[in-house]
Amino acid sequence: MGDRSPSERTTVKRLPKRAAYDSATIHAILDEGLVCHVGFLVDGQPCVIPTLYVRLGDRLYLHGSPASRMLQAVQDGQTVCVAVTLVDGLVLARSAFHHSMNYRSVVLYGTPSAVEDPGQKAEILRGLSDHIVPGRWDEVRVPSEQELRRTLVVSIPIDEASAKVRTGPPLDDEPDYELPVWAGVVPLRLVPGTPIDDARLLPGVKVPAYAANYQGPRGVPGPDGS
Amino acid sequence: MGDRSPSERTTVKRLPKRAAYDSATIHAILDEGLVCHVGFLVDGQPCVIPTLYVRLGDRLYLHGSPASRMLQAVQDGQTVCVAVTLVDGLVLARSAFHHSMNYRSVVLYGTPSAVEDPGQKAEILRGLSDHIVPGRWDEVRVPSEQELRRTLVVSIPIDEASAKVRTGPPLDDEPDYELPVWAGVVPLRLVPGTPIDDARLLPGVKVPAYAANYQGPRGVPGPDGS
Repeated sequence: MGDRSPSERTTVKRLPKRAAYDSATIHAILDEGLVCHVGFLVDGQPCVIPTLYVRLGDRLYLHGSPASRMLQAVQDGQTVCVAVTLVDGLVLARSAFHHSMNYRSVVLYGTPSAVEDPGQKAEILRGLSDHIVPGRWDEVRVPSEQELRRTLVVSIPIDEASAKVRTGPPLDDEPDYELPVWAGVVPLRLVPGTPIDDARLLPGVKVPAYAANYQGPRGVPGPDGS
Repeated sequence: MGDRSPSERTTVKRLPKRAAYDSATIHAILDEGLVCHVGFLVDGQPCVIPTLYVRLGDRLYLHGSPASRMLQAVQDGQTVCVAVTLVDGLVLARSAFHHSMNYRSVVLYGTPSAVEDPGQKAEILRGLSDHIVPGRWDEVRVPSEQELRRTLVVSIPIDEASAKVRTGPPLDDEPDYELPVWAGVVPLRLVPGTPIDDARLLPGVKVPAYAANYQGPRGVPGPDGS
């Protein structure tokens, strides 16, 4: 996926100065996100379901049970919409009207297909694990053949995508700068707490550094190193 | 909205033991969320857009510019789907297969309508402000008549809704408890940072307590006190 011109539906109409269509911006937002919201049709009705995901190269991958209604629905050839939203802060202006939020979001469209090859499925699940908790995969029991069969993996080409980003301070109407009201930004960030040991740990098993100092999701090289 | 039986589309099919349909659970999740993801149709294609919201009583309210494609689209009589997802932690099991996430989510359906009355619009915008930053509204310049005209407020009755909640430790296959692998939960929470003063504050204006010690969104009494 190189830089691309936006399609009609990915052209940001509201506040177009906040829009970006380059892969670097879009990939960086996707790589920092944990949960996406998938929009799809069931009997003509739009449905939205949150789920984990990973971006590898030019594709987004979802996984779940073969019984998942969402995963079943998205495989019938329909184009789905996926949104990833990172909340960066509350923007407090001097007027109620100019309050806002700092955020980075991506909205993308693509037509999903199931990944059938067990080896490829395992690689994608490893990518998902590396995205969410880097270092974890090498320590755990990897999926058995039966577990791979019981895991549906869906691939969504990032055919059309746009990013929208707001940063910086509030922007007030000029006369309102005379008001004796505090204005500024309250930063927000998804922060890890102290890991909670499972009650059935074997003696001497300590919490690993990647959990004790969890840094959040990160990008993972795709199959072609992208 | 009392407790209700789920409709076909709000019946949680996957892992039904995680489902809840009572108003107390649903309202508590909605009241703690900052951003919702709205699923709606444009030319038969599902679209998902993140936006702020507030729940007041049995309704969810969105707001934005009259030029917003999303707000325009949701007023054409279609039923929209709104999802709110709170991420509570990563669940690290001894096998890759049983990794999971602790979360609380709501998915609801309703048919939006525009709120026309300026007084009612102002009350809802106050509710939105009280939901996101309690205490803020009383300090800022409230919306002018013109600003109210330039703000579209949309009301969505929470006609059908379901919650899905996962809490607690990982659940591994019995033989995997013999593995010398750390397992447990990494809690995650949206945490405020130190407020950033706007560059043009008047001399002597200090950061208010509700920003310095921001506690996150909270519930707001509805028009009938609910």
